[in-house]
Amino acid sequence: MAKIFAINAGSSSLKFQLLEMPEEVNITKGVVERIGLKDSVFTIEACGKKVKVVQEIANHQEAVKILLNKLLSLGIISSFDEIDGIGHRVVHGGETFSESVLITPEVLRGIEEVSELAPLHNPVNLIGIKAFLHLLPNVPSVAVFDTAFHQTMPEPAFLYSLPYDYYQQYGIRKYGFHGTSHQYVSQRCAELLKRPIEKLRLVSCHLGNGASITAINGGQSIDTSMGFTPLAGLTMGTRSGNIDPALISYIIQKTGQTVDEVVDMLNKKSGLLGISGFSSDLRDIQEEAEKGNKRAELAIQVFAERIRKYIGMYAIQMNGLDAIIFTAGIGENSDVIRARVLEGLEFLGVYWNPSFNNVQDNQVFISYRHSPVKVLVIPTNEEVMIARDTVRLTPHKSQFVRA
Amino acid sequence: MAKIFAINAGSSSLKFQLLEMPEEVNITKGVVERIGLKDSVFTIEACGKKVKVVQEIANHQEAVKILLNKLLSLGIISSFDEIDGIGHRVVHGGETFSESVLITPEVLRGIEEVSELAPLHNPVNLIGIKAFLHLLPNVPSVAVFDTAFHQTMPEPAFLYSLPYDYYQQYGIRKYGFHGTSHQYVSQRCAELLKRPIEKLRLVSCHLGNGASITAINGGQSIDTSMGFTPLAGLTMGTRSGNIDPALISYIIQKTGQTVDEVVDMLNKKSGLLGISGFSSDLRDIQEEAEKGNKRAELAIQVFAERIRKYIGMYAIQMNGLDAIIFTAGIGENSDVIRARVLEGLEFLGVYWNPSFNNVQDNQVFISYRHSPVKVLVIPTNEEVMIARDTVRLTPHKSQFVRA
Repeated sequence: MAKIFAINAGSSSLKFQLLEMPEEVNITKGVVERIGLKDSVFTIEACGKKVKVVQEIANHQEAVKILLNKLLSLGIISSFDEIDGIGHRVVHGGETFSESVLITPEVLRGIEEVSELAPLHNPVNLIGIKAFLHLLPNVPSVAVFDTAFHQTMPEPAFLYSLPYDYYQQYGIRKYGFHGTSHQYVSQRCAELLKRPIEKLRLVSCHLGNGASITAINGGQSIDTSMGFTPLAGLTMGTRSGNIDPALISYIIQKTGQTVDEVVDMLNKKSGLLGISGFSSDLRDIQEEAEKGNKRAELAIQVFAERIRKYIGMYAIQMNGLDAIIFTAGIGENSDVIRARVLEGLEFLGVYWNPSFNNVQDNQVFISYRHSPVKVLVIPTNEEVMIARDTVRLTPHKSQFVRA
Repeated sequence: MAKIFAINAGSSSLKFQLLEMPEEVNITKGVVERIGLKDSVFTIEACGKKVKVVQEIANHQEAVKILLNKLLSLGIISSFDEIDGIGHRVVHGGETFSESVLITPEVLRGIEEVSELAPLHNPVNLIGIKAFLHLLPNVPSVAVFDTAFHQTMPEPAFLYSLPYDYYQQYGIRKYGFHGTSHQYVSQRCAELLKRPIEKLRLVSCHLGNGASITAINGGQSIDTSMGFTPLAGLTMGTRSGNIDPALISYIIQKTGQTVDEVVDMLNKKSGLLGISGFSSDLRDIQEEAEKGNKRAELAIQVFAERIRKYIGMYAIQMNGLDAIIFTAGIGENSDVIRARVLEGLEFLGVYWNPSFNNVQDNQVFISYRHSPVKVLVIPTNEEVMIARDTVRLTPHKSQFVRA
């Protein structure tokens, strides 16, 4: 038995979850928000209770200190020695990290080196890691990368059709993201199907505010919809996904924006928000579409169509499919999107039941039992995946300490 | 019987073909090159003979005059009255032109108005039209647009996931190109299959130095790989096709190029040329790949993979396929690319014979007779399509004149 932290540090936030492993049971979870800003908010849930405190929290290190003390004062742990490992989400591992790693000074340098590929995320992830290293220097830490799962993509899938030295010199290639989630749901899918993952051809649709789709062949990512950055691929809440690249100069010419302003617009004002004109949240859009709002209906159509296209692409790349997985906020909850995506896919071997699809809770299989291609709704759990890797990679301190 | 010109005017060139309709027989064809430059070259083929003249040709109007006189002096026509119609290729019809039209002053204004969508092409096409109007004022002219066939795309297919007013205000949407070619081969395909085009779901792969793939459902384009410009979609000879749009600002930041330089690089130094590092011509690349050149092999793999992805996407959009068509330079001639593209597509119902594929000439069907999805190689013929539309839309002058 081991208590493992799963940590996700943002620029002004710190999400945490403490898990009992290998049972994969959540002991407590919460978030510190508005770190370094006025009125920071610390929220923690445990045993069905939620505690919320508003106080000044100057930086991530202070946030970690408050968190750790809270665990003691709430009686969740009785000593810091009970914490056996800390798994940190790190956005970008570049080509350096193709799997999770135990954090060493060399690993920290490696994460720093690939930071220019994710300048908004990796430095912040490092701050989180260092805060824990400072306060719990004897607890092993593990870095779990959003990109690592996709490092198995073959070169024709990850290479852009640019001059080859752009890849060699600047590392310009498809990296992909949401790897931890795609890996988790693909493993869970194999369990649910009771079939070895080595023999499965899966398409995993992680549909949240950010959205990506991955082709997973034999347990390995062979292609994914996000690219060099998370802007690429699908239509998302506020992101455009792929567009004609020549449009950027046309938009600059027409609107007088700078290239950075255009890319910012593509990231923050496009996608479902751009098409609908009023919201990036699919729930709002579905509601309005039902009332007859045409732009809302159009946003749903575009979103579903782009998802379908990726399923088609990835079916071709694996010469057929064994299962389609829906996960994350929209994937788990929107029967409307799932129904639109799955419409008419019998030619691929997808046979599904609308009444299975309409059920929201605990419904795993949407497909009929006899369907050659299964369709599953699987709640994602990146924290469990982070905790698994952390347990696997940490020296088994607890065995010695508590034996 | 009617003699119809099919004209394609470029910035310093004028391609022409004279066809006997409705027989669709080529009477003569040729090209004037280096118009307005030193040593212009006029080439004309007729009855198996090729005549080439090098002389000063100052502008398109002069080129047309020389061409017309040559037709007389070579005895190909005995009077200009024999010319019954002139069909002009026009690159961009915007949303104004969803089919070919008889040219009137209003149509000329319409073509001018959409010129900002194709500033390198439409103005030049107009120069060609005006040159013929000046010299043969009584011969009806027809404009045939590269974009027109794709105007049937539904909004979810042509709309980018950008703020909606970019579409309304600036006309930013997917237009698609190569429409005349896709339309021609889809009609020919229906004839060859002896089935009504209204009942066919086709994927047409126009693979030349520029390349695009179109989903044709019931004879109508419902989606295509090129976009607002011909840069989008597939990997091409020198064009990148789709990339992560955020890459443009990253490349600017890394290389110090301007946005226009980057887009120029995406158009002229990317694609097969960029990956292979030595040629944009697939024949060169295949030759080198056979000798073991790894970057050449990689270029082939990327090209084939992108084509496969579009076939997968469009199969999904039509809920299955009836036929896949290969056309244009590479599509008609590269058995290597066709084989790579078709590999393992049995799950879609594609059963084909490598020995059918290896034959270059006059081989139409690559698929087995029993294959649910047919695969055809169909030489494209944009000139015939232009001539057909021209005959259809011109008043039947010849009936009166020659009766």
